[in-house]
Amino acid sequence: MTSPLRLGVAGLGTVGCGLVRLLRQNAEQLADSTNRPIELAAVSARSRKDRGVDLGNAVWFDDAVKMAVDPGIDVFVELIGGDAGVAKEAVEAALRAGKHVVTANKALLARHGTDLAKLSEKTNVSLNFEAAVAGGIPVIKTLRESLCGNQIRRVYGILNGTCNFILTRMQQDKRSFAEALKEAQALGYAEADPTFDVGGFDTAHKLAILTSLAFGTRVAVDQMHIEGIESITQEDIESADDLDYRIKLLGVALLTESGIEQRVHPAMVPKDSAIAEVSGVTNAVAIDGDFVGNLLLAGAGAGSHATASSVASDIIDIARGGRAPAFGVPAGKLKPYKRAKLGQHQGAYYVRLNVFDRPGALAKIAGRMGEREVSLESIVQRRPPDAQVGIAAKPKPGSDTPVVMITHETTEQAIRGALEAIYKDGTVSEKPQMIRIEEL
Amino acid sequence: MTSPLRLGVAGLGTVGCGLVRLLRQNAEQLADSTNRPIELAAVSARSRKDRGVDLGNAVWFDDAVKMAVDPGIDVFVELIGGDAGVAKEAVEAALRAGKHVVTANKALLARHGTDLAKLSEKTNVSLNFEAAVAGGIPVIKTLRESLCGNQIRRVYGILNGTCNFILTRMQQDKRSFAEALKEAQALGYAEADPTFDVGGFDTAHKLAILTSLAFGTRVAVDQMHIEGIESITQEDIESADDLDYRIKLLGVALLTESGIEQRVHPAMVPKDSAIAEVSGVTNAVAIDGDFVGNLLLAGAGAGSHATASSVASDIIDIARGGRAPAFGVPAGKLKPYKRAKLGQHQGAYYVRLNVFDRPGALAKIAGRMGEREVSLESIVQRRPPDAQVGIAAKPKPGSDTPVVMITHETTEQAIRGALEAIYKDGTVSEKPQMIRIEEL
Repeated sequence: MTSPLRLGVAGLGTVGCGLVRLLRQNAEQLADSTNRPIELAAVSARSRKDRGVDLGNAVWFDDAVKMAVDPGIDVFVELIGGDAGVAKEAVEAALRAGKHVVTANKALLARHGTDLAKLSEKTNVSLNFEAAVAGGIPVIKTLRESLCGNQIRRVYGILNGTCNFILTRMQQDKRSFAEALKEAQALGYAEADPTFDVGGFDTAHKLAILTSLAFGTRVAVDQMHIEGIESITQEDIESADDLDYRIKLLGVALLTESGIEQRVHPAMVPKDSAIAEVSGVTNAVAIDGDFVGNLLLAGAGAGSHATASSVASDIIDIARGGRAPAFGVPAGKLKPYKRAKLGQHQGAYYVRLNVFDRPGALAKIAGRMGEREVSLESIVQRRPPDAQVGIAAKPKPGSDTPVVMITHETTEQAIRGALEAIYKDGTVSEKPQMIRIEEL
Repeated sequence: MTSPLRLGVAGLGTVGCGLVRLLRQNAEQLADSTNRPIELAAVSARSRKDRGVDLGNAVWFDDAVKMAVDPGIDVFVELIGGDAGVAKEAVEAALRAGKHVVTANKALLARHGTDLAKLSEKTNVSLNFEAAVAGGIPVIKTLRESLCGNQIRRVYGILNGTCNFILTRMQQDKRSFAEALKEAQALGYAEADPTFDVGGFDTAHKLAILTSLAFGTRVAVDQMHIEGIESITQEDIESADDLDYRIKLLGVALLTESGIEQRVHPAMVPKDSAIAEVSGVTNAVAIDGDFVGNLLLAGAGAGSHATASSVASDIIDIARGGRAPAFGVPAGKLKPYKRAKLGQHQGAYYVRLNVFDRPGALAKIAGRMGEREVSLESIVQRRPPDAQVGIAAKPKPGSDTPVVMITHETTEQAIRGALEAIYKDGTVSEKPQMIRIEEL
């Protein structure tokens, strides 16, 4: 047994308290695994209120930045959150002072990951962040260590439990988006302002980190196509089901000839794929490498205990003396991020149109598709009205019918152009819905 | 860049050649990730025939044991296989000589893992074996490193691609066991003598390794209940489907109050579980820890390239200078394995009986179940004959009818006792089929 590894934990919220519980409950096992006692030497939080966890003899710091550089700690564990302010200041201070840093802060890494990695290399310390992406799933270590012998072709996943909970509720219990969101809020899965989750921004932060690890590029959270799940209707969920798909909010990073595609959007995935079975707040990440083939990791994407498990994993690595570059290769070797044009994205698409019951409407729509060489694999009129679309003898003025189409493979540019033209033509009553079909 | 890491690779079969290809194809990336060139310094194999891979300037050794201790190598990569003979001798020689060892040899580890771990600690070298279990899936690192902050409650998985291929074929294409096995042999998934795979012994080797990692116990491959898939019929596959289950060959290690259950057997898993979707030669491992909750890893369980990816992962760890104890804790701290009595295993069971069409047969069977307090959740007569079982007016002499039962939770002892009594009573035409229902 060598000297204890002394932790300074900043932030005693859900994850912080989960970590303290883990350190207490599994102390012996941690010491056995690392051959070294792990000591909670110092803590810092906004208030000194009782959180129901045993802080032992930990020294209290009101100022996290002071704790970060204190000689009494070896590892600074940042569980404050946010991409600026005290979290950023303290992490930088710790790295500069030669303290290892463990953080669960996805926003900080998505914004400043490359710079922080450089800083950690200057002082030869670890910058570990297993808990920043997909909660308890060990995806950071998998990309940073296990798959380093592979050229990664694609990484994608369900990275936001809130969205997956909402989509699961909509699918399994026929809830509307609004109802499912309310339920998620009642259960504490969604914030009062849910934009960050349902708008896809949380997924984007996590995806940016995975992209860097997978492709060895600098973190580029701003160079991403982001769509949320707000526009998904019960209609879409049911149509997907009819067509043997499920709708999931995916974060996808894909290596193409013209660069890297980073995109967050609802996607149709085959019902019999493993990722389609990932329901509720569970997360999943799939990785496609040239040697390993397809790998899928699934587990708890959030929560006090699962996230604490990942924070502990980072601490164990430090206690054992191992160190891997933050993003898999030394920060100086991270390549500039080259964004692929999404317009060139190739794939099949699901399209839902509310078509006015007017003679010739469908023919006009088909024409717009044809002009851009978008061919259709199938077309389904969801709720048969009294007469067929476009050939109704006496269409009721203003009435419309949902029509669902699946295209053959085409480009994003072509389908977008066609839908824009269709909307301008006035043959549909509202903006067309378009969901990418993800080939798995 | 520091000095190159010099590999000596023993065994140039499927995995060995896959590794050489990986080292060539992704050399630059490997060097970037590890900040150190990885060099194929020496090779050894049974013959010098051309294998279509570029061995470069590697020094050839006819004797793997000589290579293992040669001053020209830093890491001995053992891809020979077998739990005795040259593989064992060479690995031991390498460890004694202070060379790191990377091996894909599950049999060797299942038999001698604890001793080899001790040996590696004496000379302070790594004993890495990511490729020994579940091919490309990083399950060894996950248990040895990522989940060390957890007390593991259960680890289970589909660890043999051959069996999963056969069961998948039986289910999806209504093949008999014999037909599916033949197909697996034709495709190279099964050996001419398939016993090692279909009898569950390969799964047992892998499970023994996972058990040690999960529970910190000495490797105990001989203390295990093993059943293969040879007795699974198309009848069972279809009944499972009717009851919303799939049949999978699982390796299960479970912590119970009386010790650890290690068992390999066909199991019924709910059709909508992620593991039920794992089809063909894919493997999957599920881990249940007190903090992480349920984690599932799925991917290619075998094959030249996927396995090479795991071997490379072990090499990368060594090149980066990291070292974790072979089984998660120092070998001296591995606890003795305490076997739980399988008779006390609690669970629900699927039972299929071929019941003679005789008056009172079913009543007698129900009586035997009742004597041991085995209660039934459901009972299904699979192919309705002319009349109902046991109450047929004129049963054809000697004819029988398959009857499928699902029990409520009971003990292994109780159900085994009941089935033995039923068989002795002569109310059934063949030995009862019993499949454990695995709660996931």
